Amino acid sequence: MSKFAKRMTTMEKSAAVIRNLFGNMNDPEIISFGGGAPAIEALPIDIVREITNEVMRIDERGVEALQYGGVMGLPDLREVIINDLLAPKGVKGSIDNVLITNGGLEPINLVCQLYIEPDDVILVESPTFVHAVEIFEMFQAKCISVDMDDNGIITEDLEAKIIKYKPKIVYLVPTFQNPTGRTLSLDRREKIAELGSKYDVIILEDDPYRDIRYSGSDLPPIKAFDETGHTILANSFSKIFSPGSRLGYILANDELTAKLFDSKTATNSHTSTLSQVVCAEFFKRGYYPAHHKKICDLYRERRDVMIECIDKFFPEGTKRTFPDGGLFTWAELPGGINTTELLVESTTNPEVKVSYIAGESFFIEGGGMGNNCMRISFGGVNPEKIIIGAEKLGNLICSKLA
Amino acid sequence: MSKFAKRMTTMEKSAAVIRNLFGNMNDPEIISFGGGAPAIEALPIDIVREITNEVMRIDERGVEALQYGGVMGLPDLREVIINDLLAPKGVKGSIDNVLITNGGLEPINLVCQLYIEPDDVILVESPTFVHAVEIFEMFQAKCISVDMDDNGIITEDLEAKIIKYKPKIVYLVPTFQNPTGRTLSLDRREKIAELGSKYDVIILEDDPYRDIRYSGSDLPPIKAFDETGHTILANSFSKIFSPGSRLGYILANDELTAKLFDSKTATNSHTSTLSQVVCAEFFKRGYYPAHHKKICDLYRERRDVMIECIDKFFPEGTKRTFPDGGLFTWAELPGGINTTELLVESTTNPEVKVSYIAGESFFIEGGGMGNNCMRISFGGVNPEKIIIGAEKLGNLICSKLA
Repeated sequence: MSKFAKRMTTMEKSAAVIRNLFGNMNDPEIISFGGGAPAIEALPIDIVREITNEVMRIDERGVEALQYGGVMGLPDLREVIINDLLAPKGVKGSIDNVLITNGGLEPINLVCQLYIEPDDVILVESPTFVHAVEIFEMFQAKCISVDMDDNGIITEDLEAKIIKYKPKIVYLVPTFQNPTGRTLSLDRREKIAELGSKYDVIILEDDPYRDIRYSGSDLPPIKAFDETGHTILANSFSKIFSPGSRLGYILANDELTAKLFDSKTATNSHTSTLSQVVCAEFFKRGYYPAHHKKICDLYRERRDVMIECIDKFFPEGTKRTFPDGGLFTWAELPGGINTTELLVESTTNPEVKVSYIAGESFFIEGGGMGNNCMRISFGGVNPEKIIIGAEKLGNLICSKLA
Repeated sequence: MSKFAKRMTTMEKSAAVIRNLFGNMNDPEIISFGGGAPAIEALPIDIVREITNEVMRIDERGVEALQYGGVMGLPDLREVIINDLLAPKGVKGSIDNVLITNGGLEPINLVCQLYIEPDDVILVESPTFVHAVEIFEMFQAKCISVDMDDNGIITEDLEAKIIKYKPKIVYLVPTFQNPTGRTLSLDRREKIAELGSKYDVIILEDDPYRDIRYSGSDLPPIKAFDETGHTILANSFSKIFSPGSRLGYILANDELTAKLFDSKTATNSHTSTLSQVVCAEFFKRGYYPAHHKKICDLYRERRDVMIECIDKFFPEGTKRTFPDGGLFTWAELPGGINTTELLVESTTNPEVKVSYIAGESFFIEGGGMGNNCMRISFGGVNPEKIIIGAEKLGNLICSKLA
């Protein structure tokens, strides 16, 4: 058979990580702190039924929902984004600069289409979102990691690496980061927007967790500080509406928007109008505020239970983050425990049956970086199960130190 | 600002064609024979409402529709494809070899990801589907055209060009082709599958119109003759269910499926599960046969009216195809009339206000090829308007010859 293109080889490593990562997620006996999916209770099932029941009519929005749509997406959904989601965060923009994507990963793919040639450098956080790395590697980019601390990516290291490696893109998840749950501080947000302008680098701000803040004070996106168009804001409706509807968006300047139009056309023409109509009506009919409060309350409770359990059941010397939003926390274990090896035991030992994502997966550096860390998702697990699972996992970890 | 990647330049020509092509489609005063969208009457609006009303419940398929789904797509929709759509056409396959895509263009993008390096050759029909060319050019491929006659692509020319150019992919729309409405004959289908195997070339069979046959005898897809896995079958639900739901699929062998899994993951993770659930239920609840009959009857009537009008109102010497299915016909005008120039007049002259797609757009050869041709869509226009529009357009053409 014909040889595959080189990109299929360069992406192989991260693709294999992803294929393995989600292997045991569907085992019903396992309490999974692995996946990053929203809680089932956070899916607006009844609301979607109510909406479709009203709008799927020939004299309502039935034709619009089922017929071909525009490349950029439905105007009223783009208005929702500008007026309801971005304006309150201090981001100004026109609906002409918003492109609706098929979920929150597609923006990363489309931006790579615009910019990335083989061997181009992309700077990422350490640790970073492994799905994004897979995309970057498919485009044959070289990913180089930038140090983080509890306030997110360290801007001194970032600037030094921008100068050294002349990257095309800096990719980051500034709010309730995947995988650490950390949030980039205000001064660094401003600084990063400036670095983009100063060094002519694209700052790709991937911000899918931002709208699920349940404690602490809100921070403006990096995009709010962008004066030159170097920051591209990507977001998703997966966490605030539904992942299955596959809706996300990009906000970019005029020049980039014109190119994004072309790359979206040549990827899949446009995003599901059925999903778009339902999502637009979800906001326009005023369902969002109550739904938002409900899911924030739900995730806050789960975070509190999880943090309490980690502090109670995990061994002394465990470090963990305290996320003010989002779906997961990040734990660093003491005593040289290897979380990749532990995962095999924690998922197969019938006394435990608990999964998480091993920290190594999120470090592009390799060489064992993060092999004492774990990403622990609490978003999709109810409090009772969080307590059971965290106790079992904590006991297993403690047994290794005995 | 940063320089765009080279692919954004190589795709610029076809991207510009596409941006212009659909410019006047939304002018309500124009009778449009331009677009390739299904008839509004062919959209199953009430059925989708009935389905969502039943399945969008927590104890039905509500969670599945709104939660993350698998990369390959919902198993039951893939079963529908294998059992209801492919088996009756003589194509065998396992659901493990079916990947659900975001519409019918995405398969072309994903297959390019698997194979295409800059400067690789892709053979296409002459004329061919301009959106596919845009994708090929984004991947920096060189498109080379193969001659067609009334029975589709000419296999002798195809074989000679396979030998000469060593293409990675042969791309064709074998049934009710876009833009000509022509159908590839049975013996050529068999021959093309053989050429793929013999010369180790991927045959990308894009077959979105196949299931809308309303006269003549059905023919098996090229894929039915494939014994080595060199033929990849791509199809879409846009014409038989709904374009807005953005559903399509690829059938490929095991090796390719594994790679398609990776490239789909790195494009947008998976296709809308909301759309997939509704579409799967559309078939499983038995709505399809009656809907299919309804839309075939509708399109047959429109084809008959359009063909009759062309024969009546267009000048002597006009050649046109007689499609046994699909949404358009192709006309070649006598007397050196330039259809690109004529389009300006036909859309702006208040006595005419009729659009079509100028033939030149579909020829990658340039140099005026096809500039006396037009693609005439009848699928989305009701019979009364077809008569009015075709008479006005025919009269305008005749006036040029007077």
